[in-house]
Amino acid sequence: MESSFIKPNHVSIDTTESTIIGPPSTMSNFVTPLLTDQYQFSMAYAYWKLGTHNKPAEFEMFFRKNPFKGEFTVFAGLSEVLNFVESYKFGNYEISVLQKMFPMWELEFFDYLRSLSGDQLTIQGALEGSVVFPKTPLLQVSGPLALCQLMETTFLNLCGYASLVATNAARMRLRAPDIELLEFGLRRAQGPDGGMSASKYSYLGGFDATSNILAGALFNIPTKGTHAHSFVTSFTSLDDLPEMKLNGIDFKKKVLDIRMGPFAKTNSSELAAFIGYAFACPNGFLALVDTYNTLESGVPNFLLVASVLEELGYKPLGIRLDSGDLAYLSIETRKMFCDKKYSIVASNDIDEGIIMALDDQNHEMNALGIGTNLVTCKKQPALGMVFKLVEISGKPRIKLSEDADKMTIPGKKDWYRLYGTKAPLVDLLADPSDKVLSNERVLCHHPSVAVKRANVIPTKVVQMNVPLFDKGVRHNNDTLEQCKARCKYELYMMREDYMRYLNPTQYKVSVTGTVLETLNALWQREAPIVNLS
Amino acid sequence: MESSFIKPNHVSIDTTESTIIGPPSTMSNFVTPLLTDQYQFSMAYAYWKLGTHNKPAEFEMFFRKNPFKGEFTVFAGLSEVLNFVESYKFGNYEISVLQKMFPMWELEFFDYLRSLSGDQLTIQGALEGSVVFPKTPLLQVSGPLALCQLMETTFLNLCGYASLVATNAARMRLRAPDIELLEFGLRRAQGPDGGMSASKYSYLGGFDATSNILAGALFNIPTKGTHAHSFVTSFTSLDDLPEMKLNGIDFKKKVLDIRMGPFAKTNSSELAAFIGYAFACPNGFLALVDTYNTLESGVPNFLLVASVLEELGYKPLGIRLDSGDLAYLSIETRKMFCDKKYSIVASNDIDEGIIMALDDQNHEMNALGIGTNLVTCKKQPALGMVFKLVEISGKPRIKLSEDADKMTIPGKKDWYRLYGTKAPLVDLLADPSDKVLSNERVLCHHPSVAVKRANVIPTKVVQMNVPLFDKGVRHNNDTLEQCKARCKYELYMMREDYMRYLNPTQYKVSVTGTVLETLNALWQREAPIVNLS
Repeated sequence: MESSFIKPNHVSIDTTESTIIGPPSTMSNFVTPLLTDQYQFSMAYAYWKLGTHNKPAEFEMFFRKNPFKGEFTVFAGLSEVLNFVESYKFGNYEISVLQKMFPMWELEFFDYLRSLSGDQLTIQGALEGSVVFPKTPLLQVSGPLALCQLMETTFLNLCGYASLVATNAARMRLRAPDIELLEFGLRRAQGPDGGMSASKYSYLGGFDATSNILAGALFNIPTKGTHAHSFVTSFTSLDDLPEMKLNGIDFKKKVLDIRMGPFAKTNSSELAAFIGYAFACPNGFLALVDTYNTLESGVPNFLLVASVLEELGYKPLGIRLDSGDLAYLSIETRKMFCDKKYSIVASNDIDEGIIMALDDQNHEMNALGIGTNLVTCKKQPALGMVFKLVEISGKPRIKLSEDADKMTIPGKKDWYRLYGTKAPLVDLLADPSDKVLSNERVLCHHPSVAVKRANVIPTKVVQMNVPLFDKGVRHNNDTLEQCKARCKYELYMMREDYMRYLNPTQYKVSVTGTVLETLNALWQREAPIVNLS
Repeated sequence: MESSFIKPNHVSIDTTESTIIGPPSTMSNFVTPLLTDQYQFSMAYAYWKLGTHNKPAEFEMFFRKNPFKGEFTVFAGLSEVLNFVESYKFGNYEISVLQKMFPMWELEFFDYLRSLSGDQLTIQGALEGSVVFPKTPLLQVSGPLALCQLMETTFLNLCGYASLVATNAARMRLRAPDIELLEFGLRRAQGPDGGMSASKYSYLGGFDATSNILAGALFNIPTKGTHAHSFVTSFTSLDDLPEMKLNGIDFKKKVLDIRMGPFAKTNSSELAAFIGYAFACPNGFLALVDTYNTLESGVPNFLLVASVLEELGYKPLGIRLDSGDLAYLSIETRKMFCDKKYSIVASNDIDEGIIMALDDQNHEMNALGIGTNLVTCKKQPALGMVFKLVEISGKPRIKLSEDADKMTIPGKKDWYRLYGTKAPLVDLLADPSDKVLSNERVLCHHPSVAVKRANVIPTKVVQMNVPLFDKGVRHNNDTLEQCKARCKYELYMMREDYMRYLNPTQYKVSVTGTVLETLNALWQREAPIVNLS
């Protein structure tokens, strides 16, 4: 099988063989206990000085608002979080950095840091690839107060962008269910690791392949690609081509022999480039046709070369459009092709809205390559993920805010998804003492608007917060393919009105009466009554 | 000196000592020859098959439009590019990945890849931290055609985001010349390396410090930080505090002894948190005051604790605001402080526009912590950097486009900055045969609009494209501090109307008559005349 735009190249590398430059780790080398904000260490020191560092604490990671004006989010980044926790340990380098930064801190504190290990934590939460909603506890981290606190920044860093770009990819997939989607964003990402994260989590969210070779190799993602404008402009004339035999035939001569009529008016250096590329990749011939003029030069040149390839027994693939009015050009190109055997790939500034607009224009594209808008998440480049203390020494805690929607929901909770006949109806945050069972009525309350409540008799109840890591034992090792499959399945299960582009219905996340009571009691006690004057 | 928000902690690490977990490299482990798009290898294979892979080629890296609706860009990422070139080599791992991905390619091609080395390249271009403009050749890469082509994606990945975030930081610095600017974005960046790049290049662009400890350690950037809301909510009452002696005095008792009047109505668990933090960091006491209510609880609690600290001989630092109307709260807080000795730090959703709005409202802040809008470059999350072939075998090449502004400027060029009495007047792209000298008149042409041209007699001419790497010899090793200083100086030298926020003047990039002739000749020859029908 030839290098192909259409057939993915699955790669699995044997890492046991000897290497000169070894295979890079699948994790960034920057993921260490120092990849965090300074204030986490200041707080850990204060806890340690006060002797409260080992109080049992419970933190939750969640977000407050779905991205992209949508009503759902795909959770991603979990496997990296668990890798980080498993390897969490302060070595000599980390200690020496911190001692030099904080020479005024007592030496015993650094011994305490050395004693820390991720094994002291217990983590529950959502499985990677799950479809999730605001305020649901994606991660519930239990352990000694200071150690939990030290996780915050790294967890947010590992899950925030991962979930954002997976959601972005999933949204594009929903708008283009029948088109091949290719991630082309490496050059527009936030440096090397931004590019790697983009490739990995776009694939999780529903993309079919990436152009990023390293991501293909390390994460076993299919890779795709053709050639660039610079390949075309590197040819100055047909004389640039050497003699070339394909199946014993003089390939260039054969092409030029049939170049007549409108085919004789095309750009000759472009034709030279196409002949050269087809000679090197006769079964992978996908030509970028917009260097000079798509319909007057690029497509005719492709057809000329493709017809000779076919005569010689090869299967040319199609063309790529990278500028201009993509829907119009794809329709005109399809007319020139006369049939469906060639693929039309397009790749210029595509986003979710443009995919839908192209659809309205009855485009003729088979695949879309998406870069900038996918990897930068231009429409909303950050997901406001937060990590909040909800319980300490068994006592629930709240973070107040003048905006009621920004208050945290206190206490350790269980998280259930209540299903109707097929689709999820509502998510419910419950006290561990609450019983939430299928076919039994449960009263679901809005967490901050008292008049909003509903009785639900679910046909099925799924507990969403599952054990992930328990004091050194990792309970989850889902592969990227498993997470991708979960994402696809959960998106399929959701009612369409939650998923649509314009004015989607809000999926409700509710609390039980027990949780609401705790919330109200804490709020009453902690919130000062403001004096208006 | 105590851990401080105000005084930076400069850290320099002795990496010679033994380590358990060694110091991470300052480069991402993902920066290898595989961190590129598949099509680069397809093209390299085609060049190799056609025997054109060793043709001498010249590529240029440039962008077409300044970001953020501005009229300047700060160039960054060069040191990483040079590190990549110096280490460019295919090892067994890289070859095994590619052989498995492309089993249909001839084996001799992989031997050819093994023979490649960055030493075969010559690179000229701008110095890191330079203020640059559209179409100026930030990197000029000369070498064998296929090898140059293989650099494209990695160079764009390393320089695109770096330049974008450095420019974003520089713009914020221009709007807030007298305020301390702190980068707080690690949790909102594109994964670990996105966060590291953000910290490094924000500092280059003019920020004073970062919250990111690892960036502080690896790049020698000052670090800052205080405490989070979760520290405050971890306290449930004043009883949570242990007995604590500061300079032999019962610190908690002393604070509570003077708690009366309005100070008695504040939130007690917040007060407990402040007492605890002040005890641990008596010279680093900077309190986050908005957990419950900024003016009714947070600021009074800070003042209570601060007054006792001062009595005991310490220097409390100030407060941090993280929600609400920042200008109003800073003004009211300053009134309550009665003087200037305490700092007011603010950190909620700040961007360039908000900095200017705060200024209009006569805010009282001393420092701003900026995260999301800085590191995601929300206003424009990608810089459209490109890498184009401009010459092959000594012949200039052009990439046409229906948009005249998108055409490339063909041929190997020199790049000069022409100065007036103080400030730069215009940049000029010249043929290597052109002579551009100070105090001599030169005619500068707009590259695509023939009627736009001007005579310039510069008082000073600076060649902007300088030797960076010459066949294995690296000519540039500027430190981050040197690049930061260059950026600051070049921004200072620019006329203010190019730098302003609203409707800045466009800085002109022009070409000499020689360059224009080449451009016009190629365009005439290559561009097909479209048939309208």
